[in-house]
Amino acid sequence: MLIIGELINTSRKAIREAVEKKDGQYIQQIAKAQEEAGATYIDVNCGTFMETEVETMEWLVENVLQATTLPLCIDSPNPLALEAGLKKAINGKSMINSITDETPRWNAILPLVKEYNTKIVALCIDDGGMPKTNEDRIRIADTIINKLTAEGVNIDDIYIDPLIKPISAGEQNGIEVLQAIQHIMESHPGVHTTCGLSNISYALPARKVLNRLFMVQTMARGMDSYIMDPTNKEMRAALLASQTLLGQDRFSRKFLKGFRQGLYE
Amino acid sequence: MLIIGELINTSRKAIREAVEKKDGQYIQQIAKAQEEAGATYIDVNCGTFMETEVETMEWLVENVLQATTLPLCIDSPNPLALEAGLKKAINGKSMINSITDETPRWNAILPLVKEYNTKIVALCIDDGGMPKTNEDRIRIADTIINKLTAEGVNIDDIYIDPLIKPISAGEQNGIEVLQAIQHIMESHPGVHTTCGLSNISYALPARKVLNRLFMVQTMARGMDSYIMDPTNKEMRAALLASQTLLGQDRFSRKFLKGFRQGLYE
Repeated sequence: MLIIGELINTSRKAIREAVEKKDGQYIQQIAKAQEEAGATYIDVNCGTFMETEVETMEWLVENVLQATTLPLCIDSPNPLALEAGLKKAINGKSMINSITDETPRWNAILPLVKEYNTKIVALCIDDGGMPKTNEDRIRIADTIINKLTAEGVNIDDIYIDPLIKPISAGEQNGIEVLQAIQHIMESHPGVHTTCGLSNISYALPARKVLNRLFMVQTMARGMDSYIMDPTNKEMRAALLASQTLLGQDRFSRKFLKGFRQGLYE
Repeated sequence: MLIIGELINTSRKAIREAVEKKDGQYIQQIAKAQEEAGATYIDVNCGTFMETEVETMEWLVENVLQATTLPLCIDSPNPLALEAGLKKAINGKSMINSITDETPRWNAILPLVKEYNTKIVALCIDDGGMPKTNEDRIRIADTIINKLTAEGVNIDDIYIDPLIKPISAGEQNGIEVLQAIQHIMESHPGVHTTCGLSNISYALPARKVLNRLFMVQTMARGMDSYIMDPTNKEMRAALLASQTLLGQDRFSRKFLKGFRQGLYE
């Protein structure tokens, strides 16, 4: 299970302000908190600083490295910002978030995947745009996996993001993703799937409950990575309980440790 | 989704005492509470009253019928108690809990399924006992479904209980059930699956969390019935949220109603 801690993102007000004030300590503190809460990668995204994304990425990565030995997930559609981050991100195997099968983006980002030997998040989007049907989604995933492995990328380094659309926009948007996850993972043994969880609940109430249970549902179909806030107590409780139920927690050790730490009170 | 309210069971102290005191009002109150909380069947089990099971079953059924128009799930391994309950259970299509493929039980209970035209819960047990492997479980389910349909039982009336064994007894006990559910339901279109949820968490802490998330996981693999306490607020909240996420709740109406009723506070 690969947990990509999502908190270091300048679309969040506290992070934006820390960047503006050059408050490196706050960035370090958030990186550390995510590690302690069970993150296995630290995402770094400063896409809202369009004009200064390269320097901001460098500064953020430098500060995250002060706080953690975890590897980093460099998160941008901008190849210059990605490369600036990747050059500095020396903790183990970095991850890029994300490539798509849109020709310009593919051509810009694939060389970075190969040069920096990274893990890669691939969104199910191609030159035709977002998938309209679940067949589109699966077809795009197949194409991306086949193209990446043909380029020498290890299947174990590929994380397919099926793209989550809100239930409020279509009642089948959840079940279709569940079907796609299982199909993609069974068709390409060794490949991983990942997603952000919050889109699913857009425009509905009790969003945290829906996001959390959608994580449990997708795990039950094989999803093995999430871009999430690991410091959210209820989310972490659901993650550990779900892993134990799925036989992914030897002797229920992590679950029992979480219980002793008060995660289920 | 078929929710079999499990509370009227003499293994529960309050029910045992109500039977001993002939407190029919309490039984009626529990039946009503389960209906109001969303049960679609009311289970009646007085197996702990071995000596007087037949009369106790009749008395319980009479009282439940006073309180609800829901159909009943008559729950006993004893064919005499089953028949006593079925004779009185006149609310719609009754259910029997349960048959197995053990020869004596099969021979005793199949005639009741046919005579009373009931829905039937079938446990994955045969003359070899409980399933040792997941292949055993699936094989027994196949055999039972084929034998029941050959006897003229409608596939839509069959509810396979895969038998839940604790995670504490084997880390793969959960994931194997998930695989079995999907396999059984895809191999026999129209068949249903059901289970009780509490075995999965035996000998672990935070059992209610584990039971609830195991319900969500099994729903994500297609399970469409549970023998549960529908009056448990957290369980009901998870059920409605999960149904909405799976596209089983038109316009999220039930989920939104639950939200307005404070289910997610």
